[in-house]
Amino acid sequence: MTKLLILGRSGRMGQALIEAATADSGSEVAKTHDHGENLINAFDGVDAAIDFTVHNFTERVLDAALETNTPLVIGTTGHTDEEKAKIIEASKKLPIVFAANYSIGVNTLFYLTQKAAQILGNDRFDIEVTEMHHKHKIDSPSGTARRLLEILNEETNTSYEDDVAHGRVGNIGPRPPKEIGMHTLRGGDVVGDHTVMFAADGERVELTHKASSRLTFASGAVRASIWLRGRAPGLYDMQDVLGLK
Amino acid sequence: MTKLLILGRSGRMGQALIEAATADSGSEVAKTHDHGENLINAFDGVDAAIDFTVHNFTERVLDAALETNTPLVIGTTGHTDEEKAKIIEASKKLPIVFAANYSIGVNTLFYLTQKAAQILGNDRFDIEVTEMHHKHKIDSPSGTARRLLEILNEETNTSYEDDVAHGRVGNIGPRPPKEIGMHTLRGGDVVGDHTVMFAADGERVELTHKASSRLTFASGAVRASIWLRGRAPGLYDMQDVLGLK
Amino acid sequence: MTKLLILGRSGRMGQALIEAATADSGSEVAKTHDHGENLINAFDGVDAAIDFTVHNFTERVLDAALETNTPLVIGTTGHTDEEKAKIIEASKKLPIVFAANYSIGVNTLFYLTQKAAQILGNDRFDIEVTEMHHKHKIDSPSGTARRLLEILNEETNTSYEDDVAHGRVGNIGPRPPKEIGMHTLRGGDVVGDHTVMFAADGERVELTHKASSRLTFASGAVRASIWLRGRAPGLYDMQDVLGLK
Amino acid sequence: MTKLLILGRSGRMGQALIEAATADSGSEVAKTHDHGENLINAFDGVDAAIDFTVHNFTERVLDAALETNTPLVIGTTGHTDEEKAKIIEASKKLPIVFAANYSIGVNTLFYLTQKAAQILGNDRFDIEVTEMHHKHKIDSPSGTARRLLEILNEETNTSYEDDVAHGRVGNIGPRPPKEIGMHTLRGGDVVGDHTVMFAADGERVELTHKASSRLTFASGAVRASIWLRGRAPGLYDMQDVLGLK
Repeated sequence: MTKLLILGRSGRMGQALIEAATADSGSEVAKTHDHGENLINAFDGVDAAIDFTVHNFTERVLDAALETNTPLVIGTTGHTDEEKAKIIEASKKLPIVFAANYSIGVNTLFYLTQKAAQILGNDRFDIEVTEMHHKHKIDSPSGTARRLLEILNEETNTSYEDDVAHGRVGNIGPRPPKEIGMHTLRGGDVVGDHTVMFAADGERVELTHKASSRLTFASGAVRASIWLRGRAPGLYDMQDVLGLK
Repeated sequence: MTKLLILGRSGRMGQALIEAATADSGSEVAKTHDHGENLINAFDGVDAAIDFTVHNFTERVLDAALETNTPLVIGTTGHTDEEKAKIIEASKKLPIVFAANYSIGVNTLFYLTQKAAQILGNDRFDIEVTEMHHKHKIDSPSGTARRLLEILNEETNTSYEDDVAHGRVGNIGPRPPKEIGMHTLRGGDVVGDHTVMFAADGERVELTHKASSRLTFASGAVRASIWLRGRAPGLYDMQDVLGLK
Repeated sequence: MTKLLILGRSGRMGQALIEAATADSGSEVAKTHDHGENLINAFDGVDAAIDFTVHNFTERVLDAALETNTPLVIGTTGHTDEEKAKIIEASKKLPIVFAANYSIGVNTLFYLTQKAAQILGNDRFDIEVTEMHHKHKIDSPSGTARRLLEILNEETNTSYEDDVAHGRVGNIGPRPPKEIGMHTLRGGDVVGDHTVMFAADGERVELTHKASSRLTFASGAVRASIWLRGRAPGLYDMQDVLGLK
Repeated sequence: MTKLLILGRSGRMGQALIEAATADSGSEVAKTHDHGENLINAFDGVDAAIDFTVHNFTERVLDAALETNTPLVIGTTGHTDEEKAKIIEASKKLPIVFAANYSIGVNTLFYLTQKAAQILGNDRFDIEVTEMHHKHKIDSPSGTARRLLEILNEETNTSYEDDVAHGRVGNIGPRPPKEIGMHTLRGGDVVGDHTVMFAADGERVELTHKASSRLTFASGAVRASIWLRGRAPGLYDMQDVLGLK
């Protein structure tokens, strides 16, 4: 049973982390911490700590982790170069997981998409990607879809600029074999759906991820914290945690 | 049991009609006809005839139907104005079904889409349409998708020109409430998939039709021929046959 | 703009109602009420009130609504016979909406399923129903799925006892034409997905509802409250509100 | 360009193989063979041969392949022990692909399901499998679904007998974590749809294969024949061809 310290107890993500750590059979919430409380005391006696608060709190968290020799999961984003350098420096003495997306499902989708593209290719199979998010999302495609396209471009020798088609209308002619269709749906409060489709004569293979709550990200972070136990110092990401490298 | 005459016995569509008429518990294939055979003889003793051959055969078919007083299902397209006038003229003496699409499922999707749009509207619900067809299809959106958009535009006071978005990319901003997203997927040998989605905060309603063979159109035509029995002279379409008016 | 009173301000459902009433362009939250506050004052000056608190509060709510002549939406369940009688009595003087499920989408699915079954039948089309809910749900099929089966049984002259198949395994033989397949998936925290499928040779029609939050039910209740304005006294349900009768 | 001999030219599968070999940019149909024609002549000058005729023709095909030193793809099933022994004997001198299912998509689904199960497990994720086939299919689950369950059982330390639930009805109680739900849909003329779903709190991963024609199997066999060129003698299956071992 991995004893965890959850930072940012009163925040939405802190609450989700507490819920996820309690639900996971391999971890328990030993300590929590919130604004204004003693940090070193919080780190005392835990096996790992998870921080999803704000990036300018990272330096103090790193100091406490180093002083108590505690493995760390960092889920904040937007760090300055100086803050990033501190993370790298600390990872020489401590095992640290630092990833932009902690969802196990999304990381699995990335991995399976790569494998499927390697096996199926884009010669006989036509590749189409769809994503759906809530109506308030202001950019397209989503970051996750962009990463999927990167993976597909790499494996099929295509490029985002030349081969990705964002919508089709009019006299489009027969589908170019190398084209990758990208379809952005918007509506309601959809948290995030992504599908990669490989369509050939006679068959289709479809890989889908559907997110329904931020608990997704909390669960991935908890899994990362359990994975850290007994790990050598170093900087890791979710592909390491999931054994996908 | 409705006794049917199937015209164009050796063609692909003729074969599908024979298969569909045999499978339907309400009909039987009493006669078939093919190029070069006597047409009046073929019409003798049947309850209805189905013609999916070619439009320039329609005039001869109408003459034989009139002479034998036989109800008619016409599935050919591309008629000249003169040929159309002949059909209308004949329908004053005979009941005739003349429709562009005989699929029961597609006509049902049209009907359900209209009802759903009336109930759900586009105030709280965001409307998105997707269609997928084989890689050889050269136009977009499909005719069926265009008809779905017509229905949606009519029920939500929107227009194809101003409110339908064919793909989204870049800094798109929040979704305009009146917008209807139209997404055209192409790949493999897909016969035809269509989905209309209504997405609101907390829920989605999705209506989908998937076609997998031309037997679909044959079955609808057979159903139309059975429906014709005892019907008054007139020109009907599939909405009449399905009781959707 | 319909001025609303939301009862049970501090509860989860009260919060959802406030959010939904604020979001709807046809309503505004004029008043809210919570435990221990004066009820008559709360009713003063509003166009309608919505109560999703607890059933043993209904009598007091009815009294206040009658005294202030305010239309009412009742979303509580589990009323005693005596409480139900009070609701019926009050509805002779006030317009009241009283429904078990306020989701617009689910009520629309009920309506579309009935229409589709009337059009497609179970002669040429095979009917299958799937539902998915979270892993904690202890009964199967869901209440919504049971209602879908009731509608399908009624329209296809079949019965729950004789014709609904809950799972298939082994040497099942060819599918009986009248059979309705019912498939209950359980997993994760899925709020509720339901699909009704009509499959024939060559085509499929699928009707799907996906719920993702209780806001769904709040939005339906707000819509009901707006609909109540200027309505004659009487007891109504969501089919009335949606014009589906 | 791999020069192919297609056996059984006039059969349905032979026609599909000719179509697939013509469509594939890496192969061409150099020769075809049909009942009663000289077999050695047919093998002369080709790079590989594909046989999907009948199992009791296999011995003659093996003799001709050995005499002309031609790699072989065998797609027939139902061989006697004696015939199987002949295949194994021949594979000591020739490279031979011999598989029960040549669909690239289905073999990819098998591979991705194994990987997903290894990554996601059945602790936090609940696993559900659905399959749909035409109404005439008399056994359940399908052979492909059985293979998917085998893979899932192996990776999650569960068994078909103890942990696979074929349908759920009544007071089922909370979902047992190790349970794998298996749902068999039947209807219309569906060639074969399979989905493996991993559902956790906050997210779902779904892997789907949809077959729409026997061309699927022909394309896989052509790919196997191209792969055979320059291969060492031995007995291979589709996992070898696809590099999935």
